[in-house]
Amino acid sequence: MNIDGRHYRTIWLAEDGWSVMVIDQTRLPHAFALQRWTTLQDAADGIAHMVVRGAPLIGAAAAYGLCLALRADATDAALERAVETLAATRPTAFNLRWALARMADVLRRKPSSERVAAAYATAGQIADEDVEQCRRIGQHGAALIRDAHRRTGKPVNILTHCNAGWLATVDWGTALAPVFTAHDEGVPLHVWVDETRPRNQGAALTAFELNAHGVLHTVISDNAGGHLMQHGQVDLCIVGSDRATAHGDVANKIGTYLRALAARDNGVPFYAARPLSTIDWTLHDGVKDIPIEERSAREVTHVTGRTEAGEIATVALTPPGSPAANPAFDVTPARLVTAIITERGVAPASHEGLLSLYPERAAA
Amino acid sequence: MNIDGRHYRTIWLAEDGWSVMVIDQTRLPHAFALQRWTTLQDAADGIAHMVVRGAPLIGAAAAYGLCLALRADATDAALERAVETLAATRPTAFNLRWALARMADVLRRKPSSERVAAAYATAGQIADEDVEQCRRIGQHGAALIRDAHRRTGKPVNILTHCNAGWLATVDWGTALAPVFTAHDEGVPLHVWVDETRPRNQGAALTAFELNAHGVLHTVISDNAGGHLMQHGQVDLCIVGSDRATAHGDVANKIGTYLRALAARDNGVPFYAARPLSTIDWTLHDGVKDIPIEERSAREVTHVTGRTEAGEIATVALTPPGSPAANPAFDVTPARLVTAIITERGVAPASHEGLLSLYPERAAA
Repeated sequence: MNIDGRHYRTIWLAEDGWSVMVIDQTRLPHAFALQRWTTLQDAADGIAHMVVRGAPLIGAAAAYGLCLALRADATDAALERAVETLAATRPTAFNLRWALARMADVLRRKPSSERVAAAYATAGQIADEDVEQCRRIGQHGAALIRDAHRRTGKPVNILTHCNAGWLATVDWGTALAPVFTAHDEGVPLHVWVDETRPRNQGAALTAFELNAHGVLHTVISDNAGGHLMQHGQVDLCIVGSDRATAHGDVANKIGTYLRALAARDNGVPFYAARPLSTIDWTLHDGVKDIPIEERSAREVTHVTGRTEAGEIATVALTPPGSPAANPAFDVTPARLVTAIITERGVAPASHEGLLSLYPERAAA
Repeated sequence: MNIDGRHYRTIWLAEDGWSVMVIDQTRLPHAFALQRWTTLQDAADGIAHMVVRGAPLIGAAAAYGLCLALRADATDAALERAVETLAATRPTAFNLRWALARMADVLRRKPSSERVAAAYATAGQIADEDVEQCRRIGQHGAALIRDAHRRTGKPVNILTHCNAGWLATVDWGTALAPVFTAHDEGVPLHVWVDETRPRNQGAALTAFELNAHGVLHTVISDNAGGHLMQHGQVDLCIVGSDRATAHGDVANKIGTYLRALAARDNGVPFYAARPLSTIDWTLHDGVKDIPIEERSAREVTHVTGRTEAGEIATVALTPPGSPAANPAFDVTPARLVTAIITERGVAPASHEGLLSLYPERAAA
């Protein structure tokens, strides 16, 4: 998408044709800065320290990290070491392991002299496929926004939680792909952006994305969405999803469930946008079966922002003696999800609905 | 309640018998500091700048402010000027106007020579009555916590939102009065404290209160409560209330409605604790009829905390171009409220329920 009118992806090759450029997301929204990666270690550090984040982007970043590793040493031993190093950067990231497995599968079958070229080609495919997948999610989801506009004749108010925008992918995003697509098509719209405590991905990243691309938006505290829905100020909700069950339960950033409850209570459609690959067909009861990561209490007790002087500072919000808990995700039961927006279309959040998009599995 | 083992009220007379001591709540939870008020202006500034906050405490503070004014000048003109000055400090505070009206009603009928003594006596009554009212709310609510403990045999997990603790009143609090009462009686319990963005009254004040009094608690982001309820980690919710309708709809800090939805979805009892005086018998549909204050966007875009060096600093969380909205309260419909805890007992959140506590109104 665009930053001040110029098109960017979140990861790309520099003009030298081999080094890897990324947007340093740890500095957003306070500074827009790029990083150039030239070594495996650069990539591993960038992934571990969340310079890049978001499942699809982490996958692409790991793939390019492997390219950099092989430029230095393309032997079998170095390949396996690099895969291990990159896999260890974010131990629970499913896309990271998927991208590394795909890369390794291609590369192990090549002689070492051909590995660098094959690595760059495959990493490029991984990135391009992510862009295409997100573009399609955007197409399918934008139809829902267009319909809402056609029904009301007014700008469409969309509420989103966390950041499932293009910064979490290579381009377009998942939950925000429909927003960017509809906006680019000229559908008048406005986005309510949940700040998304404790890490503030909404206030920091989603607001940055929408602002940079020129999409009307308003940041709200995570407490405000229910009130806005009670007063007819939200036409639809779109969130991303990290993982989903075969029956349409969706795991997403903590607080998604509360938004879905408010949407149901007020007759507001609630959509989860995500690639079909995030469905785990072995899971049935999401609330019971999906383990929830407990992150550092410090994310709740401290917050980082920009001082008047433009410096980045971290401040404590709680009294010194008070502990905090930080479950990072929650599970929204399928009964609260109107439909799932995928790269293959929009389907009800149910086993039948998901299978209808996946005939090859239904046949199996 | 206690701070490190020593009993405090939020407002009291100094050892000189006339100057007014308050806890400076703007510095909590980062520093515990007292203020001494000796003039009308001290009191007016303290109320306006939220050195004291919370409806009942503001009422008592205004009453004592009038005492200080009359010490300097007890004429009719000075009395009326002081009432005006104090009423203007927080134009929408109902309790403030109620306390001033009660004081003025007593004082106008006294000769100026008797006004100072009468003012201190009446202000003391207002403060004592608030303590007694909150103590009774605590007694009635503690029975619910004791019952939960008796049923499960385990420590009772209570979730609360915002600060309706003793810092918002003269002592005990409203939503937290049952917690302090049950704790003091030896019922094992633990409180989940919503941080309560954007002003963080939970993370700052509720956490401070519980910590200082020695009550087990854990601060959570406002997004986490639903997840905790899904996993059986909340036995009951107790919140305060700023205003309520004749049918039991409750206006309270923004986000209360989301908590109530999650409680209903998970079979967790949801209680609003408040004095009967906060019921507006002329209001019927709370969502439609209760106007919601829109506060400064800066409360959402900026946050204040304590740096590593112990200094208080304010940082921006959002990109410079992103606007924010800040509705300060929401309305929870009576259908989501299990019962109301008042100084006269616990009653269903319905017209009949509320009237059952108010036979003098039912008769009228």
